[in-house]
Amino acid sequence: MGKLGIYLPSGGNLLGAVGIYPAAGGRDRWRLPATGGFAIMIRLMVFTLPIFLLPVQIAMSDPQVVWHQHSVTRQQRESLNGHRGCVVWFTGLSGSGKSTVANLVVEKLHAAAVHTYLLDGDNVRHGLNATPKMLAERHEESFATRFGLGFGAEDREENIRRVGAVAQLFCDAGLVTLTAFVSPYRRDRDAVRSMLADGDFVEVFVDTPLEVCEARDPKGLYKQARAGAIKNFTGIDDPYEAPSEAELVLPGGDLPAEELADKVVEYLRGAGKLGK
Amino acid sequence: MGKLGIYLPSGGNLLGAVGIYPAAGGRDRWRLPATGGFAIMIRLMVFTLPIFLLPVQIAMSDPQVVWHQHSVTRQQRESLNGHRGCVVWFTGLSGSGKSTVANLVVEKLHAAAVHTYLLDGDNVRHGLNATPKMLAERHEESFATRFGLGFGAEDREENIRRVGAVAQLFCDAGLVTLTAFVSPYRRDRDAVRSMLADGDFVEVFVDTPLEVCEARDPKGLYKQARAGAIKNFTGIDDPYEAPSEAELVLPGGDLPAEELADKVVEYLRGAGKLGK
Repeated sequence: MGKLGIYLPSGGNLLGAVGIYPAAGGRDRWRLPATGGFAIMIRLMVFTLPIFLLPVQIAMSDPQVVWHQHSVTRQQRESLNGHRGCVVWFTGLSGSGKSTVANLVVEKLHAAAVHTYLLDGDNVRHGLNATPKMLAERHEESFATRFGLGFGAEDREENIRRVGAVAQLFCDAGLVTLTAFVSPYRRDRDAVRSMLADGDFVEVFVDTPLEVCEARDPKGLYKQARAGAIKNFTGIDDPYEAPSEAELVLPGGDLPAEELADKVVEYLRGAGKLGK
Repeated sequence: MGKLGIYLPSGGNLLGAVGIYPAAGGRDRWRLPATGGFAIMIRLMVFTLPIFLLPVQIAMSDPQVVWHQHSVTRQQRESLNGHRGCVVWFTGLSGSGKSTVANLVVEKLHAAAVHTYLLDGDNVRHGLNATPKMLAERHEESFATRFGLGFGAEDREENIRRVGAVAQLFCDAGLVTLTAFVSPYRRDRDAVRSMLADGDFVEVFVDTPLEVCEARDPKGLYKQARAGAIKNFTGIDDPYEAPSEAELVLPGGDLPAEELADKVVEYLRGAGKLGK
């Protein structure tokens, strides 16, 4: 938070004038503690008397956490990039084409000098959302069990929560951030939407019929699920909750991925995300 | 992963020639399931006989997770940005000046059209690394307790692990990624370093004496720690393990933040991170 002060500069007069200045400016000597607050500086001749007032409490859910006003804003980053940041959230069954379409969108946007990043199960599962088994290679067993993410209900909820939180940071960084996760539960997707500012969350439902997805079965997962080797597999023995108000619905069984990707780019352009 | 195949093209001859090609190329008909593997295509006259061999197991810690080759590479993103991605990891005591210096570096880099993002306790604590109390507002109690991060040893380890994993993604996105966390334990910092490619991790030790930090006490935390209201506070009743091989050590008690920030920018320029 920028801090304000009131001062009486001596400026050649006996009493000087009263002014307000941001404490984060050149007057480093008068910088206040980072808790926020005001100072009154009284300058008489060559003497300066700073009077620090009580910090102003900022309303939030946990008092130990205070947002810093970063010195470069999202708007400034977006201005450098020449376009807006946003989160393009692909959702749909395994094999619906989320990753394929998202990758094509990334290609098209990159060719148009738009700064993008794609978060998907494959890159976050190696680091941020590593499995317990992966974490156990470097961490205590109890740590790995607590924070590692398997495929249980709680784990999948946390998987989406972390991805949403990271997407929010990327959006704030001014990037067109794409995510490609099954993300089958409406509640989890809506939680991500609610963390973002209006218009920052673009939900793209890749609406490919189960039969088509299962016939494609790009990772052989449906086969394993049908054989009972994978439990709680979305579309087989776990529900997929289709979005009711997605910004964009892509007919994944009817059109080639290229055309679906074009629809996403068109949408983003129409929504003013891509700049001039 | 690109897949390889061996084929005998008919090319006008009876038996044709033997060749190896990447299956991800033009021969989509022969694309193998995404598990990796080889195919031998035998072409005789107009007949083609594909023989699929067993998938080759890819060495990794968890077989359910396979890296996708993204369609736009880090190099391409860096090329669009005009500079390299990297992680500039600030470490030091509370009050050492990490955030102040990091923010100044961000300002200077932004002015030079370098794409940056700063991760700090304040922005990740609101989302990715929210406290149990914050998570309980939206999630079940057991979920909040398991994944919410307090200030216990395991929680702090996970705090740094998640930040490191996110910084890795930002680095991969081609941004100069700054982090400002006390990150007191060498093991945790080294774990982040080891996740990154050589040269991607720039450790900046803000080496400000405890007395100076405590006198500044920007958030009033030292006072609370001395009064016993905060337990396990780094520098008071919990150790700070100074880096032994930091890329940069900043004398935080001796020089103004502006000059320290200049040193960081100079280092990055010297290391070739900032482009032409």
